[in-house]
Amino acid sequence: MHLIADDPSHGILERELVVDGIPVVLWSPASGAPDAPLVLMGHPGGLHKRARGLVARAEHLVAAGGFHAAAIDVQGHGDRPRSDDDQARVAAMFRAREAGEPIAPIVDEYNGSLAERTVPEWRAVLDALQALPEVGTGPVGYSGMTLATAIGLPLIAVEPRIRAAALGGVYAFPSLLDAARRVTIPVRLLLAWDDAELDRESTFALFEALGSTEKSLHANPGGHHEVPWHETEDSVRFFARHLLASRSRR
Amino acid sequence: MHLIADDPSHGILERELVVDGIPVVLWSPASGAPDAPLVLMGHPGGLHKRARGLVARAEHLVAAGGFHAAAIDVQGHGDRPRSDDDQARVAAMFRAREAGEPIAPIVDEYNGSLAERTVPEWRAVLDALQALPEVGTGPVGYSGMTLATAIGLPLIAVEPRIRAAALGGVYAFPSLLDAARRVTIPVRLLLAWDDAELDRESTFALFEALGSTEKSLHANPGGHHEVPWHETEDSVRFFARHLLASRSRR
Repeated sequence: MHLIADDPSHGILERELVVDGIPVVLWSPASGAPDAPLVLMGHPGGLHKRARGLVARAEHLVAAGGFHAAAIDVQGHGDRPRSDDDQARVAAMFRAREAGEPIAPIVDEYNGSLAERTVPEWRAVLDALQALPEVGTGPVGYSGMTLATAIGLPLIAVEPRIRAAALGGVYAFPSLLDAARRVTIPVRLLLAWDDAELDRESTFALFEALGSTEKSLHANPGGHHEVPWHETEDSVRFFARHLLASRSRR
Repeated sequence: MHLIADDPSHGILERELVVDGIPVVLWSPASGAPDAPLVLMGHPGGLHKRARGLVARAEHLVAAGGFHAAAIDVQGHGDRPRSDDDQARVAAMFRAREAGEPIAPIVDEYNGSLAERTVPEWRAVLDALQALPEVGTGPVGYSGMTLATAIGLPLIAVEPRIRAAALGGVYAFPSLLDAARRVTIPVRLLLAWDDAELDRESTFALFEALGSTEKSLHANPGGHHEVPWHETEDSVRFFARHLLASRSRR
């Protein structure tokens, strides 16, 4: 791991790192936050680790919750080159959409492949981040919609350091339902009620499948990429409840 | 209005009042809370103003939010006698349930009749409570499940002093869908995911019908009367956000 840059501004220390070739942004309280919980932030499909919504949510987690937040670029996104295979998948997806054909099977295959590649990458990044003394080995959260949920479900099904997750916005493909059944940590699942690209039943099926004892589904009006700000505010308390509780701070 | 009793304990001042023959409990911060918002708390069908869950939620609103909370007995519930008509409705409901016949039409008629009678009663109680100098005329919230939602929807459709409501647990009868369409305030609608007595589609239909720009549906595992405590905690922040914002406290 090496440090690319750091930039402390408005109370938030922002660092760019590279872990095994994976570009990472780490946001932390500038005042220092020993043992503050870490929340891993996934970006939606086609976007990157500095997507506007992601950065706003990460900064809010740091500013309002005192957490660390980290994001990576998934392969073929942001600073990472896209392989010919991945490029062919993306092109096929756009062609299908253009032609009015269903894109779901292409998305399923592409997301599944990205998840297979990204789960071990997130685990390696988590190893590296937890080696930083100011992050440490406390409980970890995971947050992200669409592609980040397609990656997040298999990740939280196998990674015991992650203790709570905020997810949503994906089709209930059989592979994701399988992963959901193996999840046991508290999950908050968001549903954009007026999503034109995703049927509500997919989210209901994922919610039903989740093996977690504590799970909440939050539906709000709005389209595919719209998450109301009050959900972001609530997610700080959701993560605080589950990540701070296990160190008996409340 | 006259005061029956008051009992300040563990930081909460609890008063029993009677307004036009309607028994009321008012919980307030014992330390005084000038201009604190007031939340009206409805009880479920068959219960009363001191139902255990209601009291726990009311006390939490006062202790954690610094609010006033008030509950009344609906006609034929708690301290209020049940008319022969109402008794016949309740008996018919139990007979139908016993016989395995649908109780929904009976519940619809009974709840509708209670709503018609209780909406003006809540408005009279609100007049009286707002005349108390320590309550005052600030924004008001409404909270309650099942019968309290069957009463709450028509109430918040006509009562402009109520600015936010937390509801849930009712069938989407046409009269309630009509009321929901006239509602414009922020609403949080709870859904008990494993409710054996109520189909999920009823809650989805009510959520869809609500005329509110801001509305959230929160689903959690559990049966008809189960509301997880984190929803009670969240409701304090929901009411704080909507009732305090309008006086520009945040």
